[in-house]
Amino acid sequence: MDDYFGKSRLSGLRLRLYVIIFESDTPAGKAFDVGLMAAILASVGVVMAESVRTINALYGEALRAAEWGFTGLFTIEYLLRLYCVGYKRRYVSSFFGVVDLLAVLPAYVGLLFPGARYLTVVRLLRVLRVFRVLKLAVYMSETTELTRALVASRRKIEVFTVCVLTLVVILGSLMYLIEGEKNGFTSIPRSIYWAIVTLTTVGYGDISPQTNLGQFLAAAIMLMGYAILAVPTGIVTAEMARPHPKRGDPPVTPAPRGVSAGVDPEHAPPPAFCKHCGGKL
Amino acid sequence: MDDYFGKSRLSGLRLRLYVIIFESDTPAGKAFDVGLMAAILASVGVVMAESVRTINALYGEALRAAEWGFTGLFTIEYLLRLYCVGYKRRYVSSFFGVVDLLAVLPAYVGLLFPGARYLTVVRLLRVLRVFRVLKLAVYMSETTELTRALVASRRKIEVFTVCVLTLVVILGSLMYLIEGEKNGFTSIPRSIYWAIVTLTTVGYGDISPQTNLGQFLAAAIMLMGYAILAVPTGIVTAEMARPHPKRGDPPVTPAPRGVSAGVDPEHAPPPAFCKHCGGKL
Amino acid sequence: MDDYFGKSRLSGLRLRLYVIIFESDTPAGKAFDVGLMAAILASVGVVMAESVRTINALYGEALRAAEWGFTGLFTIEYLLRLYCVGYKRRYVSSFFGVVDLLAVLPAYVGLLFPGARYLTVVRLLRVLRVFRVLKLAVYMSETTELTRALVASRRKIEVFTVCVLTLVVILGSLMYLIEGEKNGFTSIPRSIYWAIVTLTTVGYGDISPQTNLGQFLAAAIMLMGYAILAVPTGIVTAEMARPHPKRGDPPVTPAPRGVSAGVDPEHAPPPAFCKHCGGKL
Amino acid sequence: MDDYFGKSRLSGLRLRLYVIIFESDTPAGKAFDVGLMAAILASVGVVMAESVRTINALYGEALRAAEWGFTGLFTIEYLLRLYCVGYKRRYVSSFFGVVDLLAVLPAYVGLLFPGARYLTVVRLLRVLRVFRVLKLAVYMSETTELTRALVASRRKIEVFTVCVLTLVVILGSLMYLIEGEKNGFTSIPRSIYWAIVTLTTVGYGDISPQTNLGQFLAAAIMLMGYAILAVPTGIVTAEMARPHPKRGDPPVTPAPRGVSAGVDPEHAPPPAFCKHCGGKL
Repeated sequence: MDDYFGKSRLSGLRLRLYVIIFESDTPAGKAFDVGLMAAILASVGVVMAESVRTINALYGEALRAAEWGFTGLFTIEYLLRLYCVGYKRRYVSSFFGVVDLLAVLPAYVGLLFPGARYLTVVRLLRVLRVFRVLKLAVYMSETTELTRALVASRRKIEVFTVCVLTLVVILGSLMYLIEGEKNGFTSIPRSIYWAIVTLTTVGYGDISPQTNLGQFLAAAIMLMGYAILAVPTGIVTAEMARPHPKRGDPPVTPAPRGVSAGVDPEHAPPPAFCKHCGGKL
Repeated sequence: MDDYFGKSRLSGLRLRLYVIIFESDTPAGKAFDVGLMAAILASVGVVMAESVRTINALYGEALRAAEWGFTGLFTIEYLLRLYCVGYKRRYVSSFFGVVDLLAVLPAYVGLLFPGARYLTVVRLLRVLRVFRVLKLAVYMSETTELTRALVASRRKIEVFTVCVLTLVVILGSLMYLIEGEKNGFTSIPRSIYWAIVTLTTVGYGDISPQTNLGQFLAAAIMLMGYAILAVPTGIVTAEMARPHPKRGDPPVTPAPRGVSAGVDPEHAPPPAFCKHCGGKL
Repeated sequence: MDDYFGKSRLSGLRLRLYVIIFESDTPAGKAFDVGLMAAILASVGVVMAESVRTINALYGEALRAAEWGFTGLFTIEYLLRLYCVGYKRRYVSSFFGVVDLLAVLPAYVGLLFPGARYLTVVRLLRVLRVFRVLKLAVYMSETTELTRALVASRRKIEVFTVCVLTLVVILGSLMYLIEGEKNGFTSIPRSIYWAIVTLTTVGYGDISPQTNLGQFLAAAIMLMGYAILAVPTGIVTAEMARPHPKRGDPPVTPAPRGVSAGVDPEHAPPPAFCKHCGGKL
Repeated sequence: MDDYFGKSRLSGLRLRLYVIIFESDTPAGKAFDVGLMAAILASVGVVMAESVRTINALYGEALRAAEWGFTGLFTIEYLLRLYCVGYKRRYVSSFFGVVDLLAVLPAYVGLLFPGARYLTVVRLLRVLRVFRVLKLAVYMSETTELTRALVASRRKIEVFTVCVLTLVVILGSLMYLIEGEKNGFTSIPRSIYWAIVTLTTVGYGDISPQTNLGQFLAAAIMLMGYAILAVPTGIVTAEMARPHPKRGDPPVTPAPRGVSAGVDPEHAPPPAFCKHCGGKL
């Protein structure tokens, strides 16, 4: 795994940079990672603060300056990563390669479309690298176990999602018919939105049934949602409770006779006499 | 299963049609299924788009034309299915036979009652056939497992539902007494609707208690809902976590001695001589 | 159990009435139970209909007449039960004895306090008797299992409830301080109500935090509610998944041979003579 | 544990006070604990009542007097605890030592900042001491089991929380872009608040998406919330269902030889000859 990005092809400055930027075994590498983490959190904080009208009115210019500072920093960092990595294409198309690019791109796109720069918060995803980089072994194994359970239940959740989607389309259309535009169910897509809001028990209340029949159907949907809500929980829980390879040391099948005595009955000294006729064997 | 609809009684054109329409082993059959799926999704999209006022204002006529096109297509398809199937009654009364009919019927009923045509979205249920038809074996087994767990917990969920229904009727009536019409609890059925909205934690807020006593009772209901919500989840999860026949290959009980030798020790004649010294027993 | 209400002390008319009213093994007893069930459901329906203003305006008098008819019927039934039961006090103080009385009492109290008569819906609880009376064996065992799991987890749920109550009082007071009266948190009890509405994920939205600090604390409460919601579910599920006496026939761990004799067969000196024929080995 | 607070260093009055205040084995100790519990509950009730405008208008002065009475009482109690405890620093920095102080401090701070005195409700935490003090053994073991399960799943829940926080920041920013200030998403922090309200299925409805794209994304978030909600439940449930040391008596070792062969070595015909010397038995 260590050579996934082509470390072995590097030497000199590029190798030294690689060890600092991509690894965290050396003091310099660790310091870089911790500093990067701090910079990411700070930059996300700046973007969030900038979006608050009252803060923006007071410190708008300073925040924008800080934002460009962080963007510049991350741009340089991205270019350095590109420079020192062995297999460039492999890095660019890796998950964190894409995230590293998305961490700076929206800021530049924001020059054309002002809103886009808020998307730089996606750089927060880079914080997830912290688990991998800082070698928090305990957390890694927990994360692995969580991921394993989710991946193992992926197909069941897909089947479940297709069924739920079919259900909400039909229920939404039915409610559109029953309640109609005057009660807030202005279109089928909006009614489907309502059905999802209801079935997931979010229940904003921005749209809610007003007619008797509508309330009756809604109540039925909610009770159904009770049982439905149990399904994904059941799927994930059953998967988590299931003993999995990593732990299931010896097979559950019973040990054959003699095993505990260290004597394999198959290899015990052959009988000397036939036990039925008494003749010598 | 292959002959459930009477395939063996068919020949010539009907057999060829049957293979295309009902099966998907041949290239033509597969193409038909994929095309049908696309048509269903597209037609549901059209119905949904038509219900949106702004889209309807712009493309209303085109959408209605497309809708009638799809309806015509599905009508022909239904007639073809009727024509080529061996046991017609069996097909008509099967789950997908009913759905196939409901997929076109609302459009015609809609000529009399305009709203009814939105019910054609029920044709979305036909998409569920895709799992069966495209032989997505992995998904089938997952679906089977989900269904098994739900069916096995059916009775517990029924008992649970009866208890919850009794509870919400009593709680709803109580709240009707406490809050009264002026606070939105205009009738017992409407109060029951509120109780269901609250107990399932949906909580629209279109009706909410205003008096102190009402809020106290509501808070008690919510805390109760906490424990109640745990019940269906517990039922389904316990059922899913339970090892079931399909997997439990060999019984967990230890293999009896001699099994590996292919000799059932229980039914072997008792030894007549000591197998070690040869003496008569 | 059959003699719990003193059946053995009865004879003549009282015994015949007892068999009809309290049991359901005879055709007459079964007919009585089914008829009673229908009467209960109908009477609850009447009470619910009466509370709806529009229905009340049209059929108010007929509904009130029907209600008094049902009340009269259930009063006679209660008196008959009292008459034919052997141990009267035991019946009156039993769960269903109390419910039978509460099924008619509110109607008479309603002559003084008009609202009270709606409480007659409590007679719906008598429907739960159907499970017991109609001997729906399968449902009984499911109900037993559900009840067992809930009873077994009772203590854990009590501890959990005390912790949650302490938490919501403290969180509610904190929010009362932060948000204050102007944002709808008009008193500590009302803020506690809000905390319960939030922690249980009901979320009416009739009271919701407006200040930044309040919204921050609310968000923290919700995320906490995530983990908290998992606790009762975990308790009940773990209890349901646990194999229990009724099923766990033989202990899972077989006692090894010789253990009870205090002799470890594995370490005993090997036999020198055949123990059946006495021959030297 | 008995000597944790230095009981062995005490004598005379201090020892007698210690036994009454810190222990509950003696009648006096038990009476003190029960009285304290009542005083705490009463004082919290007083604070809550005082915050209700209508009650305050009528009994404001009496309530404030009662509050100061309770505060005086708890202050004296705290000083007595300080006086009679052996290791003062250890007590002051213990969990209940801090809570005992927080139970009176806000009242004095409230002389400067009026609102602060409501924080005295934190004294409710002292009620949790009841479990420990009254030696409710059964509840203790249940509490221990709950705590164990929560502690054991702590790391998984931390990983889960970091992922959820990252998710809500990104989703909140996205919604801020899509919906904008005019639809209530006035800043990124507020949009993150909305994302948490939605993902946890609380759904106040104080902020809800109005645009089509916003509602589409919200629906996707809710469906995602379905699967996400299953994760903490799965974690805690799996932990609770897992057999843990305290219970796992003997290992599930396989059945020893002979058991499954239908021959009970204990009940086999008694040997006729000694297997060691060959002599007749």
